[in-house]
Parts: sequence; C-alpha cells; structure tokens
Amino acid sequence: MIRFNSDYTEGAHPLILERMMETNMEQTPGYGEDIYCEQAAEKIRELCKAEDAYVQFLVGGTQTNTTVIASALRPYQGVIAADTGHINVHETGAIEAAGHKVIALPSTDGKISAIQIEDYITGHYKDEAHEHIVQPGMVYISNPTEYGTIYKKHELEAISKVCKKHGVYLFLDGARLGYGLACRENDLDLPHLAKYCDVFYIGGTKVGALFGEAVVIMNDALKKDFRYNIKQRGGMLAKGRLLGIQFLTLFEDNLYFQISAHAAMLADRLRESLEELGVKFKMDSPTNQIFPILPDALLQELEKDYAYSYDSRIDEKNSAVRFCTSWATKAEDVESLIKRIEELYNNLAI
Amino acid sequence: MIRFNSDYTEGAHPLILERMMETNMEQTPGYGEDIYCEQAAEKIRELCKAEDAYVQFLVGGTQTNTTVIASALRPYQGVIAADTGHINVHETGAIEAAGHKVIALPSTDGKISAIQIEDYITGHYKDEAHEHIVQPGMVYISNPTEYGTIYKKHELEAISKVCKKHGVYLFLDGARLGYGLACRENDLDLPHLAKYCDVFYIGGTKVGALFGEAVVIMNDALKKDFRYNIKQRGGMLAKGRLLGIQFLTLFEDNLYFQISAHAAMLADRLRESLEELGVKFKMDSPTNQIFPILPDALLQELEKDYAYSYDSRIDEKNSAVRFCTSWATKAEDVESLIKRIEELYNNLAI
Amino acid sequence: MIRFNSDYTEGAHPLILERMMETNMEQTPGYGEDIYCEQAAEKIRELCKAEDAYVQFLVGGTQTNTTVIASALRPYQGVIAADTGHINVHETGAIEAAGHKVIALPSTDGKISAIQIEDYITGHYKDEAHEHIVQPGMVYISNPTEYGTIYKKHELEAISKVCKKHGVYLFLDGARLGYGLACRENDLDLPHLAKYCDVFYIGGTKVGALFGEAVVIMNDALKKDFRYNIKQRGGMLAKGRLLGIQFLTLFEDNLYFQISAHAAMLADRLRESLEELGVKFKMDSPTNQIFPILPDALLQELEKDYAYSYDSRIDEKNSAVRFCTSWATKAEDVESLIKRIEELYNNLAI
Amino acid sequence: MIRFNSDYTEGAHPLILERMMETNMEQTPGYGEDIYCEQAAEKIRELCKAEDAYVQFLVGGTQTNTTVIASALRPYQGVIAADTGHINVHETGAIEAAGHKVIALPSTDGKISAIQIEDYITGHYKDEAHEHIVQPGMVYISNPTEYGTIYKKHELEAISKVCKKHGVYLFLDGARLGYGLACRENDLDLPHLAKYCDVFYIGGTKVGALFGEAVVIMNDALKKDFRYNIKQRGGMLAKGRLLGIQFLTLFEDNLYFQISAHAAMLADRLRESLEELGVKFKMDSPTNQIFPILPDALLQELEKDYAYSYDSRIDEKNSAVRFCTSWATKAEDVESLIKRIEELYNNLAI
Repeated sequence: MIRFNSDYTEGAHPLILERMMETNMEQTPGYGEDIYCEQAAEKIRELCKAEDAYVQFLVGGTQTNTTVIASALRPYQGVIAADTGHINVHETGAIEAAGHKVIALPSTDGKISAIQIEDYITGHYKDEAHEHIVQPGMVYISNPTEYGTIYKKHELEAISKVCKKHGVYLFLDGARLGYGLACRENDLDLPHLAKYCDVFYIGGTKVGALFGEAVVIMNDALKKDFRYNIKQRGGMLAKGRLLGIQFLTLFEDNLYFQISAHAAMLADRLRESLEELGVKFKMDSPTNQIFPILPDALLQELEKDYAYSYDSRIDEKNSAVRFCTSWATKAEDVESLIKRIEELYNNLAI
Repeated sequence: MIRFNSDYTEGAHPLILERMMETNMEQTPGYGEDIYCEQAAEKIRELCKAEDAYVQFLVGGTQTNTTVIASALRPYQGVIAADTGHINVHETGAIEAAGHKVIALPSTDGKISAIQIEDYITGHYKDEAHEHIVQPGMVYISNPTEYGTIYKKHELEAISKVCKKHGVYLFLDGARLGYGLACRENDLDLPHLAKYCDVFYIGGTKVGALFGEAVVIMNDALKKDFRYNIKQRGGMLAKGRLLGIQFLTLFEDNLYFQISAHAAMLADRLRESLEELGVKFKMDSPTNQIFPILPDALLQELEKDYAYSYDSRIDEKNSAVRFCTSWATKAEDVESLIKRIEELYNNLAI
Repeated sequence: MIRFNSDYTEGAHPLILERMMETNMEQTPGYGEDIYCEQAAEKIRELCKAEDAYVQFLVGGTQTNTTVIASALRPYQGVIAADTGHINVHETGAIEAAGHKVIALPSTDGKISAIQIEDYITGHYKDEAHEHIVQPGMVYISNPTEYGTIYKKHELEAISKVCKKHGVYLFLDGARLGYGLACRENDLDLPHLAKYCDVFYIGGTKVGALFGEAVVIMNDALKKDFRYNIKQRGGMLAKGRLLGIQFLTLFEDNLYFQISAHAAMLADRLRESLEELGVKFKMDSPTNQIFPILPDALLQELEKDYAYSYDSRIDEKNSAVRFCTSWATKAEDVESLIKRIEELYNNLAI
Repeated sequence: MIRFNSDYTEGAHPLILERMMETNMEQTPGYGEDIYCEQAAEKIRELCKAEDAYVQFLVGGTQTNTTVIASALRPYQGVIAADTGHINVHETGAIEAAGHKVIALPSTDGKISAIQIEDYITGHYKDEAHEHIVQPGMVYISNPTEYGTIYKKHELEAISKVCKKHGVYLFLDGARLGYGLACRENDLDLPHLAKYCDVFYIGGTKVGALFGEAVVIMNDALKKDFRYNIKQRGGMLAKGRLLGIQFLTLFEDNLYFQISAHAAMLADRLRESLEELGVKFKMDSPTNQIFPILPDALLQELEKDYAYSYDSRIDEKNSAVRFCTSWATKAEDVESLIKRIEELYNNLAI
C-alpha cells in the first residue's frame, strides 16, 4: 500500500533526526527557553525580515489555533472563518471549548474574501441588537486552505486592510505553508505574511518535522503574556528544544523551501497527468493537495494498492477524492500511481 | 407611540403583581425552596400529566438555554439547532462560552425536520474523522420559533423518535410557548411536550410574568444535580418565591392559556386585515408574531406612531417587518394600527 | 417561626412594589435601555460624585460577580480573594466555569489586606516559573464581607494603591453594601468607592429590592462592550426597567440608606443585648450579620421559634451561629428574640 | 555546568531515537491509530494485567491532566487535590480554563489521605448549602508527588475505597511513575494502579522518552468517546506513532523500569552522602527528587558549576533546594556533585 491520503504519514526529514541524535545528551533548560529555540526564532525573524516578530513553538495545529485565538479574543468575541475552515470543522469544537464562536462564512474553495469579511463586520455593528450577537474579533484564514487553494498577495492585502480598518485581528494558519509558498501560482513570501498578518504560523508537522508549529506574532498586543497561554492550553513542550532543533534544521539552509518545492513539483506532475487523461477536478488547487473527480469503479480498484482520502460524491458514478504529496513522497511512487490510474481509466473507457 | 415591536414591553399581568403585594412581607426560604415554587411545580406537573416531571424556575431565557444545554452535554458535544435559532444568533455566544458548538442546520422558517436531524447524526458517525468533529449530543428547537412558526404534533413526534434512536437529547425552548399552544393551527399540548421532549421550558417573561421560565425535565439523566447547574450559571434567584408566585398565578386558573389566546386572537385580526389589503408575508406564522412585507414609504410614515421591528429587505422598495401582539396588547391599539396601515396603504396605491 | 437566618426572606420595600404597579402597563424598550434605568444610573452617578461612572443593572450576585470578573480578566489570569470570599465558596464554581482560578488568600474575618495582596503579586513575578502559574489580574473584596466585617477607608485606600501599582483591577462586591455604609464603625461612602475601585456594585437583593445589583464601572478599560458580557452571561433582564424602577426608588429619596440604617440599628440592639448577657462572638462584626457563640442546648430550644443560620462548632457544647437583620426586620421581633435568648440563657445558667 | 535542576534536561534514551530512525520512512495512519500504538497499548495492558484497560497516548502532562479531568467531570464538579498538586499550582490554571475548580486540601509532603478526602466529601453533602458549592467529582493524586514522596499500597487502597464509596473518580498522575515504582520504599506495581485507580498515566517525558504520557483508563464510564476529548484539548498527535514507538521501546524489554532504577540508585547515593555529611532534608522523599537544606553560602558557590532548583527559605542562612536524578544522569556527575558539596560543606564548617 502506498499512501497518498495525507501529508503526514512518514516521520521527519532525516537531517532532523540526525540533529536530534547529535544533541540528544546535551542538557538544556526546558519549555522553549533553550539556545536552539532562540536560534530558530532568530532565523525565522530574519526570513520574515521582521526584527520585532515574537516567535514561539508549539506542538500541533489544534493546540496552536486554540492558543492563538483564545489569547486574542475577549469572551464575547468570535472568530470569522470559512465554513470549510479547519477550526470550524475538524477540531472537535476546540475553539468553542475555549469559549468562542466560529463565525462561519460560506466558501466553496476554502477561501473567504475581504468583501465578505467587511460585509459581515459592518452588518454586525449596524444591527440594533448587536450586543446580543457575538462580536467579530478576529479573522482566521488558512494558506494553503483545507482545499489546497491559496491566497494571492492582493487578496491577503485586501483582507488585512479590512481587518485593520475595523480593529479585528488577522490570523493565518500556515499548517501547510511551505506547500503554498512553493507552488507555481504563489506570489507571497514570509515578509508579506509578517506585514499583513497580526499573527501567523509556519507548519512543521506536515512539512518535514516530526511535529511542531512556529507561531510568529507581529502585533504587540498579542505578544504580552503569550507564553502563559501556551502553558495553559497544554502546548508548552517540556523538552522544548526538540522544536527549536527541528525548525533550526528546516530554516538554516532553506531545507523547508526545498522539500516544499519537491512536494509541489510532484503534485504538478500528478495533476497534469490526470488532466491529460481528461480527469476533471473538484477544486482548482495549485498546491500539494489535489482533488480529482474519478469513477467509483476506478477508485474501488485503485484503493487496493494506493491510499487516498475520500472527499465527496459528485454524481451517481463519480466521486471527488484527495491525493496529497509531501516532502517525503517518492517520485517513483507518483509515477506508479499515474500509471495505475491510466490503466484503470483506459480499461473503464472500453 | 404604540409598541408592537416586541412581546415584552409591559410589566406583568395585574393578578401577578397583586399576589406579590399580598405575599410581600411573608418570610420564606430562598433559592426556590419555598412553598410557592413547590405549588407551582405541582400545578405544572398536573397540567403536563407527568408526576415524575422535575420542575425548576429560572429568571431568563439565555440563562435557561445555557443552563439546560451545559448541564446535558459532554465537553466534546454540540447542540443541533436551526441556523435561525435563538441560541445560534441572539445570545452573544452564551452556548459557546459554556464550551459547546451550536451545530446550525439550514432553515427558512425557523424549523428543522426529523430528516435533517437524522441525516446530520448518521453523517457524523459515518465520517471516518468523526472524532475530529463535534459530536451531536442534543437537539434544540423553539416552539413557536423565532419566526412565529410552530411544530405540529407529527413533526415533534418524528423528531423525538430520531433523538431517542440516536441517544441525543431533545430540548424545546418554549419562551413563547403560550402563544404557540393558543394559536388556531396548533395540535400540541403540555402532555405532548412532556412525552416527546427530554426537557422543555414554559416561558413566563413573554407571556404575562415580570420574568421567569419554568424548566420541565422529563429525562431522569438530566434531573440529577440540575440545581448545581442553575446556581453556577447565575440563574438561581435568591428570592425564588417570586418565580413560584408568578407561575402559580399563571397556571392555577388557566390564566396562562387565556392571555395567550388573547394575543393569538389579536394577531389573527391583524394578519387577516393585512391579507385583505393584499399584503404578502415573509413567513406563514400562525402565532403572535407576524411578518408582513410592506413598502418602505409606508413604514417610514407608520413608525412615527407605531413601533415595529425591522426584519429584512425584500426588494428595493419593500421590507419585511415584525409586529408582535402579547397578553398586554389592547384590542383598540390593534384596530388603530390596522386603520393607520390601511390609510397609508391606500394613499400609496394612488 | 420568625426568621433571622438570612437577609432576603421577604419581598421588597413596599414603595418599590407600588412603583411597579404604577408603571406596570407602560411600554418601554427592553434590556435596560429604558428611561428608568437611565434615571437610576444618573442618580447613582450623582451619589458617587462620578459623572463618568458607567452604571449597569444585573439581576443577581453570582451573575454579577461572574460577569464582572470574566469581562476583566485574560484567560490565564485569576482573581485574588479571601478564602472565605463568596466567589471562592458559595457560587458553585461560577468563576472557574468562566475559566478563571480564584486565588484564595487566608482570612479569619473575611478580609484581606494590602500587604497580603502585594506579597502575593510580587511573589508571583519573582517566581522563575511564573508563566506556569495563574497570573493575578484582579482583586475581589466584599464589603461588608461574608462575616459582616467592613473595610475602613485607610484599608481600602491601601488596597487600591497596591492594585494600581501592579496593574491589577480592584473589584468590590457590595451585595450588602447598604448595611456596611450604615453601620456605626463605617467611614466610607459611595464617592470613596468610586475613587478607590475599578468596579463595584451596590446590592439591591439584600437591601430592599426584589432583586438587582447595580454595577458601577469606573475604569474605562472595563466599560467597553460590557453589555455584551452581561448578555452572554445571562444577566440582561428582558424587562430591564424592573431594575431601573427599583434602584430609582431606592436612591431618589435616600430610601436605601434609611432602610440600611434600620437594619444596622436593630443589629446593634441585638448585639448589645447579647453582650450584656455575657455572650461572646466569633466575629467582631459591626453590620447586620452577627455571629454569637451560644450553647447547643440553648440553640436547640431557640430554633423551635426562631430561625438562625449555623456557622461552626466552637467546642463540645457551643456553636457559633448567625443572626441577620434587614430592612424588613421588625423591632418587636428583635425584642422577642432577645427576650427568648435571655430566658434560655438564664435557665441554662441555673 | 552540570544540571540537577530537573529530570528532563536531556533528550531520549538512545534506543528510542534508534527506533525512530529505523521506522522513519514507514507510512502509517495518523492520530494514534497505527500499529506501534496498538502494540504499545497491548504491552501496557499486559504489564497492568488488565485486558480491559483502555490505553491512549498524549504528548504532555498539562494536556493529559486537563483532558482526563475535563472528560470525567460534570460542569459543577471539581477535583480534589493536594494544595501542592501540580494541577493546583503549576499549570497556569488549565483545569479552571476547562471550567473546573481544584479543591485544594492542605498537605505538607505532597500527599493527601483517605481520611482527608472522606471528611471533605461527607462535609460537602452535610452542608445545607451544598448546591452552592462545587461538588467533588474526582480525586487527583500524583505518585511520586511533586515533593518526591510516594503512596504506599495501603494508602492508595484506602483512597480508592473512599472514592468508590462516594462515587468519586480516582485519578493518579504518574508523570514520574517509574521513579516511584523503582524506589526502595515502594510496594506498588502497575496491576495495583489498575486495580485501585479509575484512570492513571505512565509518564514518558521524565522517564526516558522525548515526550509522551500513556493514559490507562480502567473505568468504563471514562473510556467512551475519550478520543474526542484528546482531539479537542489538543493532545492528539498527528504522527501518533511517535508515541507508540517510544512506549513500545520503553516497555517491551523492561527498559522503563531499568532506567528508573538507575535514577533511584543515584538519588539514594546522593541522599546518603548528604546524610553522612549531616545535612537535613525538608522532605523525606525516597525517589529521584531530593530536598536537602543547605547553607546559602554553600549554594552560592555550588551554583557556579551545578544547577539545582530553589525550593524555599528555611531560615536566615539556609534554604531547601531540589536535586533531581534521571534516567540520563551519569554516576560520575553525581560523584563530582557529592565531592563538591563535601568540600564546600567542610570549608564552611571551619
């Protein structure tokens, strides 16, 4: 079985494990106050061209989303997100468990627009009963989104403008950030994120690390006492250096960007091959997640050897599914997948 | 200015104030453990034909919804509701502040159906990632709904069946219950509610009382320790007898049903008069809230003397608005409103 | 049975019920945005000599404490209180349910001191692991305390100074405020509270009203969006004018202070009579709650006709109990209580 | 600088890193549903002699404590703990952030007794106002405690009995469990824990793993839907196999017990050497944490080369400090520490 069902089926990039081995018996202070975390944070500040960025490392995504959102909002505030957003769908109500409503705006491609956001916010304050309604206090976007789509620079800039105008924080979930920045359609870079967002994070779990998300806080109001929040929400790793070491390895020689590009290239290869076959896609996603629409009969055969994740039924005989590539995907596995789909596709056609 | 904008613009039915006066200097235990609460609870049990009903009195609706829902759910569970439901829209995130997601199902008339509910629940458990998604633990419906519509007996029965089948509680918000039970289309009564719901409440605030909601718990699992929850959520009134006295007055001689019928009759009168004029309605609501679509030009004049509440824009020149009658509405005020609308309507027509 | 076990056994001062009767059929906007609330707030601002005070009315004490504290604190902050404080003991964990630790400081008389508070706060920041410990964000004191004791002006001033110095809010729970201000040892008045506290409340429930607490916010940071918090925590009464009418009646002709003085005078009478008998007290409380130590044998007889509340065992044969007077207590009832205790006391002595 | 200030200053036992290397490029399902987690769980069930134990792996302690406690309690319930307990002191209010009061019982050595617990519980229900007080729903103990002390079998059995009798869950925090089970005074083993506790965990972070805590749930009521709770509280590691691999390595050949014994032996060596010198101890702790009382003058010199953690001032010239050994401590480092303390001690004596 070769797995394309998710982008976190393997361990970590070998260089990371190597570095962990080398440093294993060193004694360091705990809780992210070690030299590796310091160096990794400094490296990230450099790459963001943001000296005043406050960088902290957490273990996983749900935890990071909850910690950032709960640390920013007042109790009566909610967070605006696409209805498909991870925090609205796949975190078992973690945001609500921290007391906050996710204000879900409709989305078909995982994205929300500056106009949608502004309409919602101005609508809120126009409503006479607005004190009876959750106040929007933050906007959450993910880039790439859960559907593999990305925000273009002008879109992010527009959202940022609306947020600033209305005193609402902008938070970008970058769990798959590398795969977004590395894709061909992308025109964003880290300094843009640092400029437009109040806070964002750079995902490690899905991009080469064993685990770990690097939170970059730009807005001073969100920096104060942030570590209390990390500890309270269970995100402060005792042996914090494990996070520092991983992010240092990922960023000191551009490893993060190289391995992301590898995944993007293989996704392109797969996408183009399917297009050539005449396959349609549910989503026009330029990153490492692709959503082809395939005949159920084909999928039934395919899944004997290749794992994908099921997305949704399209019609009686066809379904949208998801294939992911990652830093760990082997080119030959992509080729064998393509070949197998071609075979099955052509057989069905007969 | 005559107000039709809400059904809680006046104080209480005079008999209630009278009874408060009479009993004012009596000394009673606090927190709802007095003889009046006991008698009112007994009266409600009789009317529900449910000896084992556990009855508790709370002050207001938000508090009651929060207390009931938070006392029933596990932390990872959410409550299914119409997207128009009060708990989803107009309680400033009180349910989320207690840690729970409101799982909003689409609704155009304030109602949700047994089929919608069952589809959602079975869909949840079919999803491989269901542990990553809030688990449905309760269904919340309001009767009448926020749009003045009501559930028929067969609809409530069907919802109840689905809930029992899937081990999900059914909670009915009866903030305006009297106005529902008293309307012509209704075929439900209190014993039906006691039979089909795990818990429901009989609203006093909007139906003749100064304030107060009588919670009726049928499911034993929800009875245990419920008073701890009331206290924690701030709903345990120190001078609890004020609630007992009010509900006793409302229920001992059918006052509750009489004054509800009064409001329903006046709403019918207003609805029929508008229909005769040719007015259309946004919502086919048979209770004390009616939602006519009126020309903006008319409304602009009307609002000089009559308060209504604005609902939504229908087209460039027309809006849906809401008029409420209540136990306190005077027949002559309804007549003068009708007359005024007729005048304005006919003038515009010219 | 004559009840001295609590100070909320009766309804409301008759003038309040009268005013409710008079205004009963008036139509007003809901949720505290009516003219009576406006006038009552203005009256309170005048009495506090604080034009910029922001005044809001809530229904009950638990609700008020939760709303004020939750609206002020960040998620990782806690509220310092005496270990005997109402929020630490008698609110079924309402503060914790809102996410915050009550940081309990030891107290024998219901009070905490500026020195205790400062030691705790400075100790917190000195601790290397302070990010692992709840950060003190607010100080909660009650005046009078749960043990009937009061803060003197110099004590309140000192606490206020410490709070300001360390950026911690000062919140005074005045559920029984009238009985404190009216007692002979008191040297505080409303303008002092407005000067020294960031927020405090004037209790109505225990001092002449049916229910209601008037929150006075002095610190601008706590005023913003406070009404969202009230709504979310279930404290926004639909017929808000009931609160306005009550507080207006209590404050427009000094009724609040007169009825408080009545209770204080009767408490003095009872206290002095017991002292003359040679009775000792657990607590040196100058307000409407007194805590005599009485023989169990006496109490067993006394409770046939007079209700008191049990406090604690002192030794094998004696217990401390609590008697409360209130605005509603009749002088003749106090005299009959005194007479009965004298009889029993003298009999036992034989 | 040689660090004795904590027991998590190094990485992981080399065998664990080796195993991670070996399995690094395997593809597995995420979220703890892989074969390694399954095998590790099975191994733990065997060692506990408890086929029906439900085993789940979480990343860290705060997270584990919060998840277990929040999943077990009703909203109005609290958890009884020693006032020195980790959840009461060093988790930045994580338990309260999940809505629950920590009911702190006084303790001088980190332990609480069956009698203390029973007195508290029976006292709660005897109190007439018990609905106004947080209900005890769980007992939390740590073994070893935060002060290195341990529970003996008869103590744990007695606590378990009290808990069962009163329908209160018993939860044992075993963050340092290995060091407890391996110490000379211990008479407990894993099957005892499985027998007496409703839920407990076996700590990996401090005993040889990079991170990870293995939760063992014995009470069926706590097993249902536990994984929803893990996900919601942010404790479900995407690459869950990292936890499985670590615990499998620790338990398949008794590595966990061997490395724990190593730490215990070195702690004994250090303790005995200090005793011989005449040093007194704040705490009679038989495990890997020892709390000698040393002259400040000595400590000032010592800390130039050896890190310890400061506990508390004993008198003007002496302080209690903490030294930890661990699986990673080298015997020669302990010897050099002993030698250095002896030198300094003898010098001071002159």
